[in-house]
This record gives sequence, structure tokens and C-alpha cells, in this order.
Amino acid sequence: MRVSFVGLGRMGAAMAGSLLRAGFELRVFNRSPGRAEALTAAGARLAPTLEEACEADVLITMLADDRAAEAVVFGDGGVLRFLPRGALHLSMSSLSVPCARRLAAAHAAAGQGYVSAPVFGRPDAAAAAKLFIVAAGESGAVAACQPLFDALGQRSFTLGAEAPMANLVKLCGNFLLASAIESLGEAIALLGKAGVDPERFVEVMTSSLFPVPAYRNYGMAIAGAHFEPAGFTAPLAYKDIRCLLEAAEALEVPLPVASLLRDRFLRLLAEGGARLDWAAIGGLAARDAGQPAGGRGE
Amino acid sequence: MRVSFVGLGRMGAAMAGSLLRAGFELRVFNRSPGRAEALTAAGARLAPTLEEACEADVLITMLADDRAAEAVVFGDGGVLRFLPRGALHLSMSSLSVPCARRLAAAHAAAGQGYVSAPVFGRPDAAAAAKLFIVAAGESGAVAACQPLFDALGQRSFTLGAEAPMANLVKLCGNFLLASAIESLGEAIALLGKAGVDPERFVEVMTSSLFPVPAYRNYGMAIAGAHFEPAGFTAPLAYKDIRCLLEAAEALEVPLPVASLLRDRFLRLLAEGGARLDWAAIGGLAARDAGQPAGGRGE
Amino acid sequence: MRVSFVGLGRMGAAMAGSLLRAGFELRVFNRSPGRAEALTAAGARLAPTLEEACEADVLITMLADDRAAEAVVFGDGGVLRFLPRGALHLSMSSLSVPCARRLAAAHAAAGQGYVSAPVFGRPDAAAAAKLFIVAAGESGAVAACQPLFDALGQRSFTLGAEAPMANLVKLCGNFLLASAIESLGEAIALLGKAGVDPERFVEVMTSSLFPVPAYRNYGMAIAGAHFEPAGFTAPLAYKDIRCLLEAAEALEVPLPVASLLRDRFLRLLAEGGARLDWAAIGGLAARDAGQPAGGRGE
Amino acid sequence: MRVSFVGLGRMGAAMAGSLLRAGFELRVFNRSPGRAEALTAAGARLAPTLEEACEADVLITMLADDRAAEAVVFGDGGVLRFLPRGALHLSMSSLSVPCARRLAAAHAAAGQGYVSAPVFGRPDAAAAAKLFIVAAGESGAVAACQPLFDALGQRSFTLGAEAPMANLVKLCGNFLLASAIESLGEAIALLGKAGVDPERFVEVMTSSLFPVPAYRNYGMAIAGAHFEPAGFTAPLAYKDIRCLLEAAEALEVPLPVASLLRDRFLRLLAEGGARLDWAAIGGLAARDAGQPAGGRGE
Repeated sequence: MRVSFVGLGRMGAAMAGSLLRAGFELRVFNRSPGRAEALTAAGARLAPTLEEACEADVLITMLADDRAAEAVVFGDGGVLRFLPRGALHLSMSSLSVPCARRLAAAHAAAGQGYVSAPVFGRPDAAAAAKLFIVAAGESGAVAACQPLFDALGQRSFTLGAEAPMANLVKLCGNFLLASAIESLGEAIALLGKAGVDPERFVEVMTSSLFPVPAYRNYGMAIAGAHFEPAGFTAPLAYKDIRCLLEAAEALEVPLPVASLLRDRFLRLLAEGGARLDWAAIGGLAARDAGQPAGGRGE
Repeated sequence: MRVSFVGLGRMGAAMAGSLLRAGFELRVFNRSPGRAEALTAAGARLAPTLEEACEADVLITMLADDRAAEAVVFGDGGVLRFLPRGALHLSMSSLSVPCARRLAAAHAAAGQGYVSAPVFGRPDAAAAAKLFIVAAGESGAVAACQPLFDALGQRSFTLGAEAPMANLVKLCGNFLLASAIESLGEAIALLGKAGVDPERFVEVMTSSLFPVPAYRNYGMAIAGAHFEPAGFTAPLAYKDIRCLLEAAEALEVPLPVASLLRDRFLRLLAEGGARLDWAAIGGLAARDAGQPAGGRGE
Repeated sequence: MRVSFVGLGRMGAAMAGSLLRAGFELRVFNRSPGRAEALTAAGARLAPTLEEACEADVLITMLADDRAAEAVVFGDGGVLRFLPRGALHLSMSSLSVPCARRLAAAHAAAGQGYVSAPVFGRPDAAAAAKLFIVAAGESGAVAACQPLFDALGQRSFTLGAEAPMANLVKLCGNFLLASAIESLGEAIALLGKAGVDPERFVEVMTSSLFPVPAYRNYGMAIAGAHFEPAGFTAPLAYKDIRCLLEAAEALEVPLPVASLLRDRFLRLLAEGGARLDWAAIGGLAARDAGQPAGGRGE
Repeated sequence: MRVSFVGLGRMGAAMAGSLLRAGFELRVFNRSPGRAEALTAAGARLAPTLEEACEADVLITMLADDRAAEAVVFGDGGVLRFLPRGALHLSMSSLSVPCARRLAAAHAAAGQGYVSAPVFGRPDAAAAAKLFIVAAGESGAVAACQPLFDALGQRSFTLGAEAPMANLVKLCGNFLLASAIESLGEAIALLGKAGVDPERFVEVMTSSLFPVPAYRNYGMAIAGAHFEPAGFTAPLAYKDIRCLLEAAEALEVPLPVASLLRDRFLRLLAEGGARLDWAAIGGLAARDAGQPAGGRGE
């Protein structure tokens, strides 16, 4: 299986590294070619152009947003034109539902396969091959990707034939995380003002009801008001909440907590928080209580 | 250590059973004496009056609400009058912060010890001695309770000298659970209307980001619209959200998600949902999307 | 008709003045007797004690809150004890529904009449006899008060026999005003950041769709960020929103905008805004947009 | 001044009629030519094509939405191509801010004038020349339109040189109206369940604090649950709230009441309310209280 990997940002580079370690022959491409050096040193071949990267059985993309994904697929010299008929585009970026729908339709019309398989996990999880992967697409195409999923993640899930549904599930997962951040922020604001140590509260909760990394990591970040450096920046999280709300609008589904989160992110951005981790929305409740973020009076 | 247990509802009876199995000599009391039979059969002694139950080193109460707790403590023939000086009232009920404050102050004035130690867990967890216990109070008093906590729960946490803070943490824990229910309900409403199987979504989430019983159990309840029989009824959950908001009002802390949850519970009750499990608020988002609860069109 | 007036704060003193100017023989009483001087100079007689004020056919009260009203009615030497059977208590304070219900029941049991007749208008409207009055109570009792209403207000409305319903309507009126303030604040935040002069916007709106003093005055206050001196302070407005939400809880009616307003007021108070006019909640939207209150960047 | 009028829906036809009655020589055009008959009978000349309608000093458009406006301006045979240099496009439709910005820029580049002048008022107000008009654009161009505004409305307002700001003010005006509808709905839900006649409440409020047609008409509609026939349909109102929120997103301004209104409209549409008047969102609060819309139990 000839595999190409397009998009060598922090996530993509870590994922490509996992594939190399798992023994895949890999061709890599990035707009800014300097990003490929560590990977070529580890055995990847550099594709000098996107067109050459398209000489593959499976072309994986891991890109920042809809615009980048559509440029790679629909642009001159792009995937739609140069990927062979019968080959497969495995799109692992976090895309909006309409974007995934456009990609799926265009590839189908061109006789190419398409699988949406966004991931949960930060760059360190990607480097450790500990991602969670949610895949959807035509069943044969998804099955063909399984060895790649096994090399990239600790677990993968398949969702059926409609590729954009994987992107919707990814958006819903990020929504659940953002909701947990907001609720932790409100509880910490209250407890901090009441005089309870917020970190102790997070310890108690994550040793009892919520023994999961998300609650622990975001809870501790909020309790300590540590929002830099960002693992996942507020603008990217805001983009995902907007994509969720757009999908919900298209289906006529009101989502009151998502609406509230949208307003939290807008405020954070308006106040200059674009460089902060998305957990920083969890500091706003303390501010509204007249406390410093982190919730403690002193 | 002479231990008495007052309040033999479903939770209390299961907890008293755990203490008997752990070898404690136990005296039990309930307003309706029939509730004590299984326990006396298992070796507990029946206290015919509350006054006699007060002949103890530690008197444990597990009661439905503030009113019941205050009746037992402040009523004629009550704990405040008959518990010996130097003995200890271990209050494991879910109480409001002001109620806990009144109990702590009254016991202190009477020369009696007081510990607040509310629990997380349903009756089946109580019967299996798998509760989580959050305790606060004067450190010597809390230490004296530790053998009881070890017999009742899988883990206990201490929070400092101010007893009502344990009750506030309990309210915050229930708030985090209710928030997760609401967010799961919104995600399921959207996915169900989009054509994704909600149970599959819950499986994916609880096998990846949220591998905890709360997300699994409530998520599956919402996906299947199964809200009866109730493990924790909507009116009790509503009471806890109200207590949380009252505590927040007293400290001037706005809690927008808690406000939203309050409105969800009010609506559920107004629509006749008083007998339902609190997870039923998670079915409202699907209804607002014009779908049956559970989120699936058909 | 012998009329007594109890409660000579800014509103009460202005209202008592209107009654004097209309020719009523008036006896006045205030806890702090200095407040009565201008009125006695204008012809009122001073009642040295509340008991003596009760020698009246109609005793009017205009007091700050539930607590003050209940102290005057239920306290030793209070109205319930000393008002003659067949005489009437005309309560014009803004009270909660349960408080009004307690007053109505107690007076009925004592053979005294009771009318709730809260007012809309600030002290300057009271001084100009331009209040709006909303009255409820037994129809004969309300009819007996009509000459007083005519002297105090530009218009009065009767609502039926259940006195506390007048208090509920008053709370709803304040809720409509607070909602308008919040919405004006949001619109002004947006327009200000877009570069539109907020005062021009207020002019346009109040010259077209909303030609009423409330929109004009609060809109201009928000546009100019002028929240002092307060005509109606944030803590009093917050109290009214809380009373509204309590009434709604008792009837199981979710009120999402009222919940949002409650959180706005809590935030304003937490940030130290207790001395500000309630219109100051209208400045929070601009702050959340990263703008100074008033909405203009510079 | 040669004036052409494009868009003869209910609003447009009524406005064109006002211009004829004021003595303007008018050429009219509509995609479906049957709509022009009453106007030609009243003295208008029919333009058989849009191109011929462009032979004018001022071309007025009154169209349903962004799409219709952009088709008329940018389409083959459209205004941008055929309107003479120096002539003026007076756009009175309710458009989004980005759409107005595109129109303004294109006309400027083509050497044509452009004024945005959306209106407040329903078809009956248009027929009676009682509209309120909010205009923005280059000052000479706006001044040239003044005789038209005088013939169409009871009052017009100018806002400065940036044409899209008039559209933003229009969106904000509709937002204030929708907010008032929601708040009236909540108050009526509460009062109705408490046993107060909602129509009496609306009478009291609109005879005192809010003596304006909007509060009276929408309040009575909600109190009586009369939402058909629609004066302004829920989908159009929803579109305006979405446009407002998009403008707010672009400027990073959180608008919590607007977010809540968006969710109300989505729910109304999901429940099948597309044919209803936008006031129907005011019936949802009663439904959430377990009452029929209109708020009265029986």
C-alpha cells in the first residue's frame, strides 16, 4: 500500500511519524517543505509537489480547516485531479459537515474513494499513537484504512457509510468537552469564592465521578488559571462550535448550551484571548463573580 | 464505638447494611419502624425512639432533605437535646449549605461534634459499599469517622474544617452530572436528527473521551428515552440545582449553565415529569428539534 | 376619610405630598421622624407612633421591602394589632407574592381590609402625581381607594379580588423593563463596535418603534454609560427579578430571559455595582465585546 | 426625477402605490408581471425588462432577501450593468450587512450611487405611507432620496455615509422587537398560570409603561394565541436574527438574548411553525410551563 501524507503541522507530523514507526512506506508533502525534514530523516520520502504525492493508494490529509482542505482537493494541481481512480482520500482533519459532504461528492463523481476519519487527541497523543479515530465512509474503503488506524490510534470506531457523519460526531465530542470545561469553570468559580481549594475539588471529582484526563487536565488548568501554552487554541475551538451550530441550524435543532459556549468564546476572543487554550472560557465564570480567574480571592 | 443510624430509606438501609457487614455494632431508628426489619434480622438493634438512638458515640443520619434533617436535630426529643456532649453527629444527607451551617453551629454550641459527609452513588453502590464520600468538619471528628467511611465507600475525601463545604462540593458534583446530561441530550438530539445512531455515539464517546459510568448510563438512557424507573428523581435533582443557585446567590456568583438546568427541570416538572429520572431533561433537546425523545425520527 | 401614610422614603414622601395637595387630611409616620418635617410643614399631622397612625380609615404603607412591610404589620405595636376592624390597609410597596399573600390573609383574619396597589414610576413621577397604579383586592375595598389613586397617579388599573396578583403584575412590569434594558445593551454593544453612534440609534428607535420614556431614558443611559446617580438601584432590581423567579418556581414556569437577567445582576453586584442604576446591566454586553461600557471604541 | 421600482411583493406594491399618489412618475418591474396590474391601472408604466427599468435616475428595489437582491444587481441584464453612471440604486430591502457591503462596493466601482434605506412597518403601514425609514449612504445621494422618503414614510432617519450601517440598524430594530415578544411571552406564561387574565395584563402595560403598537399587538397576539395569518413570518424573522448574529460574530460581540431568540425560532420551525407570525415564539414559554399557548389553564 503506497501511502502519502499531506499536512505536516504539529498533529500531522506526529501522525506521519507513527505510520513510519509502524513500517508504512510513506511519502510526505507540505506546502512549507521545511516541516518534512525530521520525517525524511526517519525514512519518509519527500513529495516535491502535491501532484506527486497523489501517486498513492491512500492519500491522507491532516489540515487546519475547511479552506485548507478544499484548496488541497479542488485547487489546480490538487487531489481531485491527480489522485488515480480507485485510490482513496483519507481525510483526518476536523472539517465542517458541508465541507465533508462536498469532498465526498466530488471524489465519488471522480471515481475516487473518500473516508472521513477525524481524531480525538492532542499532538502528544498523536506522537504516542494514542489517538481515538472516528471513521465513516463506504465500508470497503473504511476497511482498507484499518491498518492505518491501528498504527495511528489506540482505538478506532466506524460509523457507517455517510462520511460527513464522522465529522459531525467529532464536532459533538468537542462540544461535550467544551461543555465540561464551562461547567467545571462555574463550579470552580463558586467553590473558590466559598473558600474551597479548587484543585482539591478537581482531585475529588476526578478520583470519583469523572476519572478521565479531560476533566483532570481542564479542571486543573482552570483551577490554576494556566491557559498557556495552548494545546488547542480558543479560535479553533470556536470554529468547531460554530460548525456544530451551523449543522444544527441546517437540521433545525436548538442547542442552548452550544449557544452559550459560542458566546463564551466570542467574549474570550473579543478580550484578546486568541492565543489561549480553549480551557480559558472556564475562567470567565470566576471573573463574572468578581474573582480573579482560578476563582480564589487571594 | 457505639454507632446509631437514623434514616432507613433506600440509601440509608443499604448503608446501614454495609456497616453491619463490616462488623459495627449498630442501633437503627426510623420514623416508620417497619423499615428496620431486615437490618435487625441481620444483627442491628432497634432503637424504639430517637432519644434512645442518641445513646451513641456517633449518630449517623441519612435523610431526604433539609426539613427532615432539621426535624430530627431540632425537634422535641431530637438529637440536639439527647446526643451526649462529646458525641458526634455524622450527617450524610444531601443538605443545603445554610442547613448544614445551622446544624454545625447548633451542635458546636451544645458541645457536640458535627461532620458533614454527603455521598455520591445510588442505592446499588451503597449496598456494595462503593460510595464516594466527601467529608468536612473538625479534623479530630472527621478522623473518628474514618472507619465508618472505609466500611461505606470505595473512597473518601476530606475537605477541611468547615462542614458545610462538603455539602457545597456535593451540590457541585451533581451540577457537573446534570450538565453532562444536558450536553449529551443536545448532542444526541442533533445526531439523531442527522441520522446517526445515538447509542453508537454514546459507545464511541464512552470508549474514548469519557469512559465513566455516568456518561455511559445517562447517555444510553437518553439515547433510548428510558427514564423510568428513576434512580434519582427529577424533583430531587431540581432541589439540588436550586440549592446550588441559592448558595451562588449568597456569594454573588452567576452560573449560566446552572440557570439553564434550573429552567430545564422546571419545564420537566411542569410537563408532569416528577416521577422520571433526572436524565429525562436530556430528552428535551430532541423534543425541541421536533423529534421524539431519544432523537430518532422513526 | 382619615388617611395615614407610613413610610416616608423618597417615594413615600413624594406620594404623601400629592395627597396633601389633593386636599386629603393626612397623618404621617416614619421610623426616623425627621423625614416628616416637610410634610408637617405642608399640613400633615405627625403620628408619633405607629399605633397612633393606625387610628385611620385607610392606612397606606410605602416601604422598602418584604421585611419592612412585615415588621410594620406583624411587629409589636403594629398595624395588625392596632388598625380598627373594618379599616383598610392599602399597601403600595413592591412586595413579593408570598409576602402579599401573608398580609392579605392576616388582615382578613383580623377583620381588616387589604389592598395591594404597587406603582410604576420614579420619585419625580410620584411628586408630579404621574404614577401608574395597579390595584387588586376585594372590590369594595379597591373602590374605596379610588380617590387616593386619582390623587397619586395619572392612571390606575384594577385586577380582581386576589391582592397578591397586583404584586405579580408589578414584578412582570419590572421584568419587561429589565429585558428592554438588556436588549438595548446588546444592540448598542454591537452598533458601537460597528461604528454607529449609539445615541443616534436610540434616537431612531425612540422616534419610531419605541416612542416611550423607558426606551429613551435607559437607551441614552447605556449609550452614554451614565449609571449614576441611580433612579432605581441594581440591588432593588435584582430583588425584584428574584421575587419573579421565586413566583415562577412556585408555579413551575421556566423563564429563560429572567434567568439571564438574574445572572446579569449577580455579575454587576459581584463587580461592585451595588450603587449603580439598574440600567448598568445594559453596559455588560459592551464589556463582553471588549469595548468600554457605552460601546464606543474611542 | 425618473423613478423605477423593482420588486412588487406586498410591501413593494404598497410602497409603489404611495409614490404614485405622491405624484411621482413611476416605472415598475417585477419578475412575475401580473403583480404590476393594479399599479399600471393607477398610472405607473410597466417596464417589460429589468434593463428598461434601469433607465432611471433612481432605481428602488424592495426584494425578499440577499439572494433576490444580488440576482437583480449582479445577474445578466442586471442593475449593475444597465443603470447609468451617476444614477442611484436605492435599496429598501432588509439585507444582511455583507450583502449591503457587496452592493455598495460594486455600485461605487461602477460609478453608480447606492443608498441602503430599509424600512420598519408592515404592508398596511406601507400602504398608508406610515413607514419608518433608516437611510445611510453618501450624503448627496441620501439627500436626493429625501422626496421619496417623504412620500413613503411618516419619518426618515439618516445614519451617515456607510450604507450597510442602515441595514445593521434595521436588524437591531427587529432584534428589539423579537426580544419584547419573548419577554411578553414569558410574563404572560407566568401570569396566565397564576390566574391573571393575560389580555388585562397587556392592556395595563400598554396603557402605562409601553404605550406602543408593537407591545399591544404582539402582546394581544400572544395572550390570545393568534399567530395566523402572519404579518411577518417566523422564517423571515429567523433570517434576520441569523444575520444579526453573523454581524456580531464578525465583530466578536456576544449577544446572549439574540442567541436565545435564535434557539426559540429554530424550535418553532422544527415544530412546524413556518407559516406562523414571528410572535409565535411568544407562545413557547407557556408551553414550557405545561400550559396551552396563551397561558391560560382553562
